[in-house]
Amino acid sequence: MRAYEIVAPDGIDALKLTDRPSPEPGHGELRVRVHATSINYRDLMIVSDPVARGIPYPRIPNSDGAGEVIAVGPGVDRFKPGDRVCGCFFQRWVDGDVTPEGMASALGGAIDGVLAEEVVLREDGVVSIPDHLSYEQAATLPCAALTAWHALVPKGRLKAGDTVLLLGTGGVSIFALQFATMHGARAIVTSSSDDKLARARAMGAWQTINYRETPAWDARVRDLTDGKGVDHVVEVGGAGTLEKSIASTRVAGHIALIGVLTGGTVNPVAIMRNSLTVHGIYVGNRRMFEAMNRAITTAKLEPVIDTTVPFAEAPAAYHRMRAAGHFGKIVIAMDR
Amino acid sequence: MRAYEIVAPDGIDALKLTDRPSPEPGHGELRVRVHATSINYRDLMIVSDPVARGIPYPRIPNSDGAGEVIAVGPGVDRFKPGDRVCGCFFQRWVDGDVTPEGMASALGGAIDGVLAEEVVLREDGVVSIPDHLSYEQAATLPCAALTAWHALVPKGRLKAGDTVLLLGTGGVSIFALQFATMHGARAIVTSSSDDKLARARAMGAWQTINYRETPAWDARVRDLTDGKGVDHVVEVGGAGTLEKSIASTRVAGHIALIGVLTGGTVNPVAIMRNSLTVHGIYVGNRRMFEAMNRAITTAKLEPVIDTTVPFAEAPAAYHRMRAAGHFGKIVIAMDR
Amino acid sequence: MRAYEIVAPDGIDALKLTDRPSPEPGHGELRVRVHATSINYRDLMIVSDPVARGIPYPRIPNSDGAGEVIAVGPGVDRFKPGDRVCGCFFQRWVDGDVTPEGMASALGGAIDGVLAEEVVLREDGVVSIPDHLSYEQAATLPCAALTAWHALVPKGRLKAGDTVLLLGTGGVSIFALQFATMHGARAIVTSSSDDKLARARAMGAWQTINYRETPAWDARVRDLTDGKGVDHVVEVGGAGTLEKSIASTRVAGHIALIGVLTGGTVNPVAIMRNSLTVHGIYVGNRRMFEAMNRAITTAKLEPVIDTTVPFAEAPAAYHRMRAAGHFGKIVIAMDR
Amino acid sequence: MRAYEIVAPDGIDALKLTDRPSPEPGHGELRVRVHATSINYRDLMIVSDPVARGIPYPRIPNSDGAGEVIAVGPGVDRFKPGDRVCGCFFQRWVDGDVTPEGMASALGGAIDGVLAEEVVLREDGVVSIPDHLSYEQAATLPCAALTAWHALVPKGRLKAGDTVLLLGTGGVSIFALQFATMHGARAIVTSSSDDKLARARAMGAWQTINYRETPAWDARVRDLTDGKGVDHVVEVGGAGTLEKSIASTRVAGHIALIGVLTGGTVNPVAIMRNSLTVHGIYVGNRRMFEAMNRAITTAKLEPVIDTTVPFAEAPAAYHRMRAAGHFGKIVIAMDR
Repeated sequence: MRAYEIVAPDGIDALKLTDRPSPEPGHGELRVRVHATSINYRDLMIVSDPVARGIPYPRIPNSDGAGEVIAVGPGVDRFKPGDRVCGCFFQRWVDGDVTPEGMASALGGAIDGVLAEEVVLREDGVVSIPDHLSYEQAATLPCAALTAWHALVPKGRLKAGDTVLLLGTGGVSIFALQFATMHGARAIVTSSSDDKLARARAMGAWQTINYRETPAWDARVRDLTDGKGVDHVVEVGGAGTLEKSIASTRVAGHIALIGVLTGGTVNPVAIMRNSLTVHGIYVGNRRMFEAMNRAITTAKLEPVIDTTVPFAEAPAAYHRMRAAGHFGKIVIAMDR
Repeated sequence: MRAYEIVAPDGIDALKLTDRPSPEPGHGELRVRVHATSINYRDLMIVSDPVARGIPYPRIPNSDGAGEVIAVGPGVDRFKPGDRVCGCFFQRWVDGDVTPEGMASALGGAIDGVLAEEVVLREDGVVSIPDHLSYEQAATLPCAALTAWHALVPKGRLKAGDTVLLLGTGGVSIFALQFATMHGARAIVTSSSDDKLARARAMGAWQTINYRETPAWDARVRDLTDGKGVDHVVEVGGAGTLEKSIASTRVAGHIALIGVLTGGTVNPVAIMRNSLTVHGIYVGNRRMFEAMNRAITTAKLEPVIDTTVPFAEAPAAYHRMRAAGHFGKIVIAMDR
Repeated sequence: MRAYEIVAPDGIDALKLTDRPSPEPGHGELRVRVHATSINYRDLMIVSDPVARGIPYPRIPNSDGAGEVIAVGPGVDRFKPGDRVCGCFFQRWVDGDVTPEGMASALGGAIDGVLAEEVVLREDGVVSIPDHLSYEQAATLPCAALTAWHALVPKGRLKAGDTVLLLGTGGVSIFALQFATMHGARAIVTSSSDDKLARARAMGAWQTINYRETPAWDARVRDLTDGKGVDHVVEVGGAGTLEKSIASTRVAGHIALIGVLTGGTVNPVAIMRNSLTVHGIYVGNRRMFEAMNRAITTAKLEPVIDTTVPFAEAPAAYHRMRAAGHFGKIVIAMDR
Repeated sequence: MRAYEIVAPDGIDALKLTDRPSPEPGHGELRVRVHATSINYRDLMIVSDPVARGIPYPRIPNSDGAGEVIAVGPGVDRFKPGDRVCGCFFQRWVDGDVTPEGMASALGGAIDGVLAEEVVLREDGVVSIPDHLSYEQAATLPCAALTAWHALVPKGRLKAGDTVLLLGTGGVSIFALQFATMHGARAIVTSSSDDKLARARAMGAWQTINYRETPAWDARVRDLTDGKGVDHVVEVGGAGTLEKSIASTRVAGHIALIGVLTGGTVNPVAIMRNSLTVHGIYVGNRRMFEAMNRAITTAKLEPVIDTTVPFAEAPAAYHRMRAAGHFGKIVIAMDR
């Protein structure tokens, strides 16, 4: 079976398409024929510079995949051949708080990922795909959607009437917009593109801010919220957004600190003075994924796919993400 | 100003329409011209048998009122004449858990209620009315809506994809249906009336069960939930429903135990064996009311009013409730 | 290897001492040489009437055992031969809320238990024994101690200064007394024996009540708490205690509903009126067990052992429990 | 009555001892004869540079006072003359999350403080003093003790067996040490003084680290915790400690971010990668204070007083704090 491998620290175009033997599922494991995978900024960073991220190679990249169970190892009782499944980002984080063991089981990082025709996953590390979703759609869920869900629902305890600030229109932010709307909350979305903001409004965003036109977007957020600030921020911003995010948050509000985009530094005094809660969010566990899928099923949520590229042209997906012009998720589909 | 008073233990038709001097607001108090009041089963029970409920009389009944601030006492800074407000069921429960002091401040019970042309309320004991609601609509919120909100949101941590069992189509259940739908959850509603069930479906109920036709409605609930049971029950049922409610709940699920309707007894073993959480819910505090109003505003929720009767015919409202044919709330409007 | 089996519905004296082949650990499993087991009221009930509890036989009883790992199956990486371990009551409940799958993995109930010289356990279903504890002491932990911990700590969020009502001096109650004291809380203990009450006071109980001398012990509890009632009840009582437990609890207080002793019925109105939270508690998960063991280690807690009987005389342990004269745990030690 | 006032931006020695008329309690207010006040770093900062903190003057400094009720205004029913009380740091934060209104009611900041012979406080803004405490001891509680309690108990959900990292031996840290010990947790204390560390150990600290001798104290903390890191950090450190505090915390651990000492900046990536929860803690509400006092009463906790200076020499207290040689609290006692 074919797979892409990181084989050198030379970035996207050094990804090597190789042929590997079909993997055998061990005890409690499944062999899954991958139908689609989606990429996240984290995957781009790993592919671009595996050394900086401490990733040994050869390594198959990507955490997010969806496919069909085609064989099961001994002791498997949760799934059978023919089942449609998504792999969990963390193969060994089923429930409760994350542990070091769970963190050491990230697909496409600590262990081989899913940019391959076939993968072996733990039966404890996959979930069923909602019936109304295609494999391409399902492949968008494991990292970006679950991160947004974890941030807003189990950690944020989002409720109807809350106000949520979303930075940009990448995968996490767009899912967060959908989850916020689904819960009756009001989302404020920022972007530098009026076109993207129009799309966000069409999806239900309550207010939008072009941060290029309104560099003091934190002041604008406060204006929109009667001077109080938002209840939640899903902070996926690059260097420098965190200070403004904090300034956009109400007293005793909540900031979900997400992702590898977040750089820069923050002065902790504002966190203290305003009695904020900051949660570091790193994807989520399988139970959260299952709960999210029930919500997705109930709402018949359709993930927003920016682009689908064929497996043979997988590197184009990373280039598309690097160009940062996308809205929603970038998917790589198998050539079947 | 005119007011109804309980003056004897003789029930609805003994309510006496009297004339009282206009009340003076003291420090931190407001005088409110009542525009509408709604009734709850608890009000019916108090009017019907004040002695059994330990209510001294003369006593003005009813907890739920909406009106306009017409005067403020010294020290008031949260409201001014002309503001549209609802009174809080508990005049002295602003935030956090309820206390004995809070419990001793229930309108229309421990202290005089709102079935009057004018009332004096604490400024800490009222909330602003959402702009899109009339006084009649706003008068439905203080007890029934807040009870449903408290049960599902702060206590139940309701989230999208959850399943909620609602018993009957009284005020609390209909608000719970609206709040469940608002959060992307799926509601199962029971009733003995197919007509009411049709109305519930039109409002977004996911499934309905005629409990007269399906006496083993708990088994039906389990069938509808793949054998698992629901995540939440809003238990407002009369004698005998609690056992079936417990049997309808998933392992580690949540039962909100509400209200004066709940009689009968329960065998605690099932609660233990299934690791259930049971919350006794007795209306809610002012912060919850404010949060609920933000949700109502965001969703432009319209309370379901069954009937509006004029102040002069207030006893008819209680008779309507006693007949138990209503769907949603029964409102008494001032004759203006 | 020798093991006791339930082979007939005839009670304690029908337990049969048999010889079974030494069990082989499969993938992810450990073979453990049992050094000690303790019994719980649930074990007595199962042995006494397996049919009523739905237990098929032959079945090895008892959930609580401590021993030494003597062999490991393939794929094991958390333990190695020589490690001292306790089995978890639920072999498949590692973290988070209990699930139906977890509930179907109870030792000595759904699956064979530990009243045997050797057992095979899942590596995910055991925990390390605190260094300062003997096997006999460790064998008291899996059901009774973890139940008390789960009730008071993760569910009850016990804190210093809280008041806890404990019914009787069985295993759960005595551990609850130790955990309450460990957290700076005040425990009120009831018993019909002044001698047992004296022992409870010696262990740190703040107040004690002889419920035979003071049948209205709920009134006494309120007196002791300035009329307010306790913050927590660990309700392990037999028929009829629950009503008084509810009457002993403060407004917005917490009742942990435990165990097979709890019979009778309860009128739910008092739960609602007083805004109580009732948690059904059914032992706990492995992460709770690990956290509890850290607490036990920090405090150098010594479990209270009432009696230790040799393996050859195991039935005597059940008779001792049935006689209800014990204080703390009854242990069966291997004859080594 | 005499009071100290900030009358100029010139620091400690510009504090002016003045004579003011005895204040009259209004509706719901108490006049309190102050017996003792304690100082916090925040008070030192305000006195040292009121302009930078936005404090208008003349302003009576200090948030923490204890005294006796000597008169009550109309509408008061919670206290009476002769009652021993402490004022709450925030006069208008009774329960639940802090609000902007609550934040605008800080004694010795937004409003006049307690460095005076008499003060008027809201009856909703005071608590009873535990019987076993003197006024001097009680005066240490409102800011430092409540901050430590809020950080560890309601926010941190501290439990027995947890490990807590405490930075230095100022007021908050020493109370945190006492509360950690009270709950059966293990405290690691840092200081640059071996003498102070010896005192911390005598009070129950589990481990101590001289950060001057061990500049890489985060590595030492990890060594002490089997490489895992602590469960909680009470982060009161000056510039630069936060990065090391984060590095000292276990995966999914908790950092309470406290106080005006915290300067510098932090890279948020580590918070995200390790799934940390960071709570900004700004003293606490009255219900927390009441719960803390129950714990203090139960444990017969004795606050650690470094120095007591007489009212006439109040400036010496601030000089003592600025010198940073203290261990525990610095108290100013009335000259009676």
